[in-house]
Amino acid sequence: MPRRCKYCGKPAIIHLRYANLSLCEEHFKQYYENRIRKILEKHKVRGDILVAVSGGKDSMSLLYALKRLSLMMDINPYAFHINLGIGEYSEMSESIVRSFSRDIRITLILYNIKEELGFTIPEIVMSTKRPPCAVCGIIKRWIINKVAYESGFEYVATGHNIDDASTYFLKALMTQDIYSILRGQHEFLQPKMEVRLVGRIRPQFYLSERENMLYAQLNNIPVVERPCPYSASAPIHRYKAAWDTLLDINPISQINLTRTLLRLGRMINIKEPELRACKICGYPTESRDSICAFCRLLRKTTTNR
Amino acid sequence: MPRRCKYCGKPAIIHLRYANLSLCEEHFKQYYENRIRKILEKHKVRGDILVAVSGGKDSMSLLYALKRLSLMMDINPYAFHINLGIGEYSEMSESIVRSFSRDIRITLILYNIKEELGFTIPEIVMSTKRPPCAVCGIIKRWIINKVAYESGFEYVATGHNIDDASTYFLKALMTQDIYSILRGQHEFLQPKMEVRLVGRIRPQFYLSERENMLYAQLNNIPVVERPCPYSASAPIHRYKAAWDTLLDINPISQINLTRTLLRLGRMINIKEPELRACKICGYPTESRDSICAFCRLLRKTTTNR
Repeated sequence: MPRRCKYCGKPAIIHLRYANLSLCEEHFKQYYENRIRKILEKHKVRGDILVAVSGGKDSMSLLYALKRLSLMMDINPYAFHINLGIGEYSEMSESIVRSFSRDIRITLILYNIKEELGFTIPEIVMSTKRPPCAVCGIIKRWIINKVAYESGFEYVATGHNIDDASTYFLKALMTQDIYSILRGQHEFLQPKMEVRLVGRIRPQFYLSERENMLYAQLNNIPVVERPCPYSASAPIHRYKAAWDTLLDINPISQINLTRTLLRLGRMINIKEPELRACKICGYPTESRDSICAFCRLLRKTTTNR
Repeated sequence: MPRRCKYCGKPAIIHLRYANLSLCEEHFKQYYENRIRKILEKHKVRGDILVAVSGGKDSMSLLYALKRLSLMMDINPYAFHINLGIGEYSEMSESIVRSFSRDIRITLILYNIKEELGFTIPEIVMSTKRPPCAVCGIIKRWIINKVAYESGFEYVATGHNIDDASTYFLKALMTQDIYSILRGQHEFLQPKMEVRLVGRIRPQFYLSERENMLYAQLNNIPVVERPCPYSASAPIHRYKAAWDTLLDINPISQINLTRTLLRLGRMINIKEPELRACKICGYPTESRDSICAFCRLLRKTTTNR
């Protein structure tokens, strides 16, 4: 017997096992946008929000949902895209984000790292021994915070989903990485404008890739289909694949594992690291020598060249 | 190219991926017994030890290894077997434990729960709504502690392995069971003879089922081949199966996940629960109404009958 939508009885297009919930197209969209709305309301995020958009299904769905929600909530989303200079992949990504932002009438801020910083991701990855995704992550985090701060935004929204958060924790558990567990992954981090740190919100924190993908499909949201050429070799993918097995055993296990480790982290209640201004760029860092991860990376690669 | 023993260069019979270690028969036995010896030494467990033996590969290997170690260490193992009254399964188990204890000259203490308590496990399981393994666990823990205490033992050794401990933690994570995580699984619990609580040691805490099985095979240790008829339906088996996937990704992940949660637990450092004497049996309980889990179970089933 086909499943029917819990709210209207029409044939369901998705069954969310973690919530034991079947939904038709219309009610799935509503459910999805409601989940995003609630997380913004919970953390009282209002006004201008800079949405970091890579062109993938997660961030493109986020941008669209925030645009829709802006019609009924006091939020005002802007798109922000970084062209990483990863050949055709980056060209396609920029082009999709450009046309989509125009179509849905969202102002887009573009940042081309070759133009702004003088190097592409492939170039800097070549001149360092660190894994590409780690390097790219450091650079993107720094750029997003800096651009948001300089443009007067109090909040940045990113498209992290529950697959990301739960895999981060699973990998940390399986490698005895206590530091990463205590540091955690959070749906929200308060702005600290006095140290030039913009607030961060992850409205899809408890939504899955599958839900983001479906939302994109139902709304005809264009997405970059091909993955980043570097990501295939990232070890995190092997851990991510484990969820096929674990979700089959318990469909809510991604959410449960994430919430459990966040609760344990709060119980441990370690002191928040003190933030200092980086001696080189002026943006915040926890590092004792007052050089942030971004500037350390740049300094190293300059020496290596 | 066939792998060779790290210590003597002979063809290896096992490769332990978690330790990246290949071993021949002789050096595997030595390695296995050394691991057990070290855990006893670490916790200064000496003298008479009551070894709870079900007849399965874990506890039978433990009994044999402790017998071997007693030739070179100041320990003196006794076997303890509970006949649970689970039909042919229990008959076979008792018979195997009896003949093996005799063969290796270890004194066996036998406890038949039908004779001592007036009911079998199937009988008590029928008269309660709780899962069979939970019921049986409560009863066995109570019996083992009581018999050990009354017979003057300071330590009980049990055959829990890393598959057990890591699956306990994985299930707790996947079901958001903070209580079980904080309670934990421990390789050693101090005796508290003043409250009639015997110390507990799990010498195989970081050894796997596979290693226990191999040790049993190499030493021709007889084991009950068939599993307990109740265990097939236990939900924990579904979680246990997940390790096939996780160990394939990271062969040391069972040990890492277990150690990580034990460390987090120590960081949280919750107050140890106060132990009271049970109003009915006199053995210790954390329960506020001073009735232990065993007596509560019995009282309920008596009322139900």
